Amino acid sequence: MVMAKARAMDGPHQSFRKADIQRRELDKHDVLLEIHYAGICHSDIHTAHGDWGEAHYPLVPGHEIAGIVKEVGSDVTKFQPGDRAGVGCMVESCGSCENCEAGEEQYCLKGNTLTYDGVDKYGEPTQGGYSTHIVVTEDFVLHIPENLPLDAAAPLLCAGITTFSPLNRWQAGPGKKVAVVGLGGLGHMAVKIAHAMGADVTVLSQTLNKQDDGLRFGASAYYATKDEETFNTLAGQFDLIINTVSAKININDYLSLLRLDETLVNVGAPAEPLDVHVFSLIPQRRSFAGSLIGGIRETQEMLDFCAKHEIMPEIEVISADDIDDAYERVQKSDVKYRFVIDTSTL
Amino acid sequence: MVMAKARAMDGPHQSFRKADIQRRELDKHDVLLEIHYAGICHSDIHTAHGDWGEAHYPLVPGHEIAGIVKEVGSDVTKFQPGDRAGVGCMVESCGSCENCEAGEEQYCLKGNTLTYDGVDKYGEPTQGGYSTHIVVTEDFVLHIPENLPLDAAAPLLCAGITTFSPLNRWQAGPGKKVAVVGLGGLGHMAVKIAHAMGADVTVLSQTLNKQDDGLRFGASAYYATKDEETFNTLAGQFDLIINTVSAKININDYLSLLRLDETLVNVGAPAEPLDVHVFSLIPQRRSFAGSLIGGIRETQEMLDFCAKHEIMPEIEVISADDIDDAYERVQKSDVKYRFVIDTSTL
Repeated sequence: MVMAKARAMDGPHQSFRKADIQRRELDKHDVLLEIHYAGICHSDIHTAHGDWGEAHYPLVPGHEIAGIVKEVGSDVTKFQPGDRAGVGCMVESCGSCENCEAGEEQYCLKGNTLTYDGVDKYGEPTQGGYSTHIVVTEDFVLHIPENLPLDAAAPLLCAGITTFSPLNRWQAGPGKKVAVVGLGGLGHMAVKIAHAMGADVTVLSQTLNKQDDGLRFGASAYYATKDEETFNTLAGQFDLIINTVSAKININDYLSLLRLDETLVNVGAPAEPLDVHVFSLIPQRRSFAGSLIGGIRETQEMLDFCAKHEIMPEIEVISADDIDDAYERVQKSDVKYRFVIDTSTL
Repeated sequence: MVMAKARAMDGPHQSFRKADIQRRELDKHDVLLEIHYAGICHSDIHTAHGDWGEAHYPLVPGHEIAGIVKEVGSDVTKFQPGDRAGVGCMVESCGSCENCEAGEEQYCLKGNTLTYDGVDKYGEPTQGGYSTHIVVTEDFVLHIPENLPLDAAAPLLCAGITTFSPLNRWQAGPGKKVAVVGLGGLGHMAVKIAHAMGADVTVLSQTLNKQDDGLRFGASAYYATKDEETFNTLAGQFDLIINTVSAKININDYLSLLRLDETLVNVGAPAEPLDVHVFSLIPQRRSFAGSLIGGIRETQEMLDFCAKHEIMPEIEVISADDIDDAYERVQKSDVKYRFVIDTSTL
């Protein structure tokens, strides 16, 4: 058994406290990762506060995990001690349903095991990356390429793959006009990745406050959605829209910006339903879709793509004592663009 | 100028009255069609009653038109007098936008001209098929194959193409499980066409009242959506769902029936927005789409497909004096499955 230092929450809207948690003995396929950095994802906050249903406490969030392999089980072939490695949103899946067999473990039909607030194959609750160590079966551990610093690599394991996957599937690339709605943790990664894929990227943000950043990240245009003229100007322009906003917005306004046969993909997950007018879809045979992280193979592709194109999130590294404050700032959108916990401060 | 007998409505919820209307002189690309039959589409009723915005009165509805060519303009090459021909929902488009050039005139970016309640290129209001004659440019006239009776062919021009187009685009065919929501004018065509395409078809209807019909039309299964167990039984089963219902339904229940990466296409057009929960889309990367009739080339493909597979709608031929009664019956879903006006009774 490995003891790990961690930060845990005991109930919705409580503060984080220091905790010592146990990680399981390595089975023959397991990897013990010494966590160096863990990103703070908005999902951590939603889960910790029970926004998406009751969480199980004490809760150690964190699914943007980067570190160094310390030890491996007897049958592990993909990793060895000293490797730079990461863990994302899931740590197990059934491995045998049609989706797992297709490499889409995030859509496992039997339900995969989330990195935290899940129950693992031994029946134990899973605890996430706000801790010094984690034990994960090697099939759910990713290689972090040498030229990606571990602190900047951490958010790629969720924010990176969540945006890379739909951009990849809906073929963002040369000749394609892609709009990214919202310039936060997910949005800024979507801009960087879509630009690196060769697409022409437009940011749609409430105001022009972050315009300089958006253009620096690779967008060629930036529009304020508070300005109603934006929706007239851009009507029917886009081949793909990635909506990263987790709040309820008037999705019909955004659907109207799509060309014939094109798709708006939501990666933001508002708790309330969106009012979709069928007349927003029918006139140009548009689609409204959703997308969830990505499979393990695709996550590795994303890391390799980001290494090749030197794409990294904009991060602010914080110490463990600042997690509560960081949560408040994320909820006020006061973050440029991702907080990453230095786990040596746990 | 050609005088035509017609039935017109002078305002929302009024009764139809006899009318004499003028059809324009043939220009060199025009075809004069002697209308033999006109189907009654639910859209006629929505438009006549102003449900989708104020209509222009007097209004002669009808966009499911079948008849015989009587006369052609000097430059017409595709038709000659005596040909069996049809006209659907549109009679003109710009011809030069990217959608028109792609043969998707129904999505004309400059706005096509609807068969009725539109304004034609001469600035005149268009009047539809509840009349004895119509003049249409040859590019918007379809050939009706010999083995399709004209009365049964009429509804193919809207109900047929509206369902054929999404089934074609989303590749209904062997090995695909297709669900059709609603067994009315559109739904019964969707079942017949999807079955002829080789798909395995399931009908989802409020009750089992029309089950025998559904199975006769080619469905292999039939479920009542009033039975909540239906949604558990069929969860994650379908490769494509065609929703023909024009009322507001809980679309999330239906989205949950799709497999990974599959699509629910609305061809029904409810006036109210639908409450789409993003959590209905994200977990299996599902799409919610809309589709509008089909292009002219595809409409001809549909007619040829129906002729080849001997697919025809189930119709009840009525005389012109029964239109008001037919409207009431359509609104009560008391029609099996399409009323067709015999225009010799006008």
